[in-house]
Amino acid sequence: MKEILAEVITIGDEILYGQITDTNTQWISAELDKIGVKTVRKSSVGDQRARILEILQEAESRADIIIITGGLGPTKDDLTKHILAEYFNSGLTIHQQALEDVTAFFRNRGKELTEINRKQAELPDNCTFISNKRGTAPGMWFEKNGKVFVSMPGVPHEMKAMMSDPILGKLQQYFRTPVIYHKMIKTVAIGESVLATKIEQWEDNLPSHIKLAYLPTTGQVRLRLTATGENAEILQNQVQQQIEVLKTLVTEYIYGYDEDTLETIVGNLLVSQQKTIAIAESCSVGYVTYSIGQIPGCSRYLMGSIVAYHNQAKINQLGVKAETLSAYGAVSEETAREMAENVRSVFSTSVGVASTGIAGPDGGTTEKPVGTVWIAYADETQTVAKKLQLGTDRMLTIQLTALHVLNLIRQTLGIQQ
Amino acid sequence: MKEILAEVITIGDEILYGQITDTNTQWISAELDKIGVKTVRKSSVGDQRARILEILQEAESRADIIIITGGLGPTKDDLTKHILAEYFNSGLTIHQQALEDVTAFFRNRGKELTEINRKQAELPDNCTFISNKRGTAPGMWFEKNGKVFVSMPGVPHEMKAMMSDPILGKLQQYFRTPVIYHKMIKTVAIGESVLATKIEQWEDNLPSHIKLAYLPTTGQVRLRLTATGENAEILQNQVQQQIEVLKTLVTEYIYGYDEDTLETIVGNLLVSQQKTIAIAESCSVGYVTYSIGQIPGCSRYLMGSIVAYHNQAKINQLGVKAETLSAYGAVSEETAREMAENVRSVFSTSVGVASTGIAGPDGGTTEKPVGTVWIAYADETQTVAKKLQLGTDRMLTIQLTALHVLNLIRQTLGIQQ
Repeated sequence: MKEILAEVITIGDEILYGQITDTNTQWISAELDKIGVKTVRKSSVGDQRARILEILQEAESRADIIIITGGLGPTKDDLTKHILAEYFNSGLTIHQQALEDVTAFFRNRGKELTEINRKQAELPDNCTFISNKRGTAPGMWFEKNGKVFVSMPGVPHEMKAMMSDPILGKLQQYFRTPVIYHKMIKTVAIGESVLATKIEQWEDNLPSHIKLAYLPTTGQVRLRLTATGENAEILQNQVQQQIEVLKTLVTEYIYGYDEDTLETIVGNLLVSQQKTIAIAESCSVGYVTYSIGQIPGCSRYLMGSIVAYHNQAKINQLGVKAETLSAYGAVSEETAREMAENVRSVFSTSVGVASTGIAGPDGGTTEKPVGTVWIAYADETQTVAKKLQLGTDRMLTIQLTALHVLNLIRQTLGIQQ
Repeated sequence: MKEILAEVITIGDEILYGQITDTNTQWISAELDKIGVKTVRKSSVGDQRARILEILQEAESRADIIIITGGLGPTKDDLTKHILAEYFNSGLTIHQQALEDVTAFFRNRGKELTEINRKQAELPDNCTFISNKRGTAPGMWFEKNGKVFVSMPGVPHEMKAMMSDPILGKLQQYFRTPVIYHKMIKTVAIGESVLATKIEQWEDNLPSHIKLAYLPTTGQVRLRLTATGENAEILQNQVQQQIEVLKTLVTEYIYGYDEDTLETIVGNLLVSQQKTIAIAESCSVGYVTYSIGQIPGCSRYLMGSIVAYHNQAKINQLGVKAETLSAYGAVSEETAREMAENVRSVFSTSVGVASTGIAGPDGGTTEKPVGTVWIAYADETQTVAKKLQLGTDRMLTIQLTALHVLNLIRQTLGIQQ
């Protein structure tokens, strides 16, 4: 089956000069991917005639589907429609349905249609009109030598509504696209290169229609398997078989799949085991609590936390023994253990976790350099502590501390399941 | 003066297939804009040899500066370096400094250099090595017929560090870009359209070589003045004169300039007034503490905080009266005031601040809908409270709560200066 290729083009100076974030192209290519259309190029160009004509020509030479967003507003710097008319050698005529749509849009808001907005109902004669249910600029669908050009407004919610219905359906119909199945495997606390070495043989043995990609983020590596074929169920089974093999190699690092996050996984474990949690933090200054607390419904398990940034607060609010602090220091296994155990009893929860470390930039020593962090987990049967070495970037140390505390909860509760 | 044009190319299947958001190109083009370089095209292509060679050729034909990110990881799907070597007809050789860097990177983390990472020190012979202080993949600088190609890793914090120093400086030097002076004026707690109306006349009267841009972010609007000319000192004076006029119009919303953040401004106020602070949080689940605590050196003023997510914790850890909670509810002026006053006494600090609200998605009522938040500030002479209505997005409510607490501290301490 011939691969269907797409290019996504964004038009607008505000994107080119870095003044707004382009979220449209990510969304569009993810949607195309789901229907088996491969995006081969994404481009942004400014509101200039020559630049737009050039990119249209290029894209036509490379792709079967050309998706264009932006430049359809009512003002003078919005050129897209006029350039598309030029590109397809067409005049512009008022489209009856487009005029009714834009008139209704204004009427529903108690406003008169202005002349400038009336012009938005003018469309190239050789395009198919695509209705915009959420704004004033209609979409346009052009066919040329078996290729399809689609032009949509750049306002994200208008574009998404239009793409979801009818454009994606029309594309599937027009190109009879293949079936693609994706599965994301999420790992934590293992670096990309170590992971790659551990699973190298498995990767080499993947069948040719299943591809692997590494997608690293802070402290995590996501592995994406992409299978292409003709039957969704068969592909899903084949991918699942590969995941079963993968699990024999790196199971302890895999925390979830697809939409799972470490925060939701930890939340689900606490809920299913009917456990409550309290947090004692120092160097992570509230970020562990925020990570756990950002999940809707966390009130089922999160009781509260104490950020004891100063030693005096560790003694007064968390009951850490002054002798522990003087004998071992605030950044020590002993202090972390006391913090986790004591915060659990302060808030009367099933689980207590703690972090204490040196986020920097100051405060490091030869023995305990910046980035040294101790984390601990305590419940009614055990206390577990772990030392981390997280580097010299303060923000990164704060974020990675939260990640490792979450992972420690996951590992400890996971074993208890 | 000839205009210097740039193209920004992102390499990686994960961007093309829509699985990660590309924030790099926006940041890069905004930085190029600041040194007077105009981005004329942004493109993303996948990890395929032919596609990458094609885009390099195209970009070379159109732009003076070609900035490339991504595809420099240690795994098999990362092709950029090999293709650049091919494009510039060069072999790959171990670069001594690159090897030392990557070895030190692993040593500092207590790890041995793997063979796969050792290969990251191989560079095309005809490139200038750019050190990566935050990761394992070095940057590369190529010159060809008066044009410059720069290749950097796709990990945003690695790329940004490298671009900030030395790449932007090297580009300014190489292309002798015009003198541009930027000044960012940072406002908080005023919407873009209200602000625009207040300063409309001032904006209309700006001289033609000074441009204004509105850059809104969550809860804040940054105003950027850009002056173009030949003498940095003259431009700086002219911009400062405009700012003096602006201050007569909206002074209470301006919290700082350029690199100032609300967090650093609040930190500086606390340090200069030799005050300490403690925080009581509920709906913001640690994010206020994190905002204050993320600043290096915050140990001079931040004692600690209590996140009392459950009412029982508000009573037990913060001493909020059970009668207050039953008479007025947890989300009330009375509770917020008690939280701020009590956390101040619990941690024996000069200042106590508090937040309590409904972050959602559940828990809203007709009287107190989701997004209702009370914040409070207490010191030895006064307690101030404020009601906020922050909408229905949980994450946004958490972040905006922190922003408004910081602004409340700024306003109250600022008046005392």
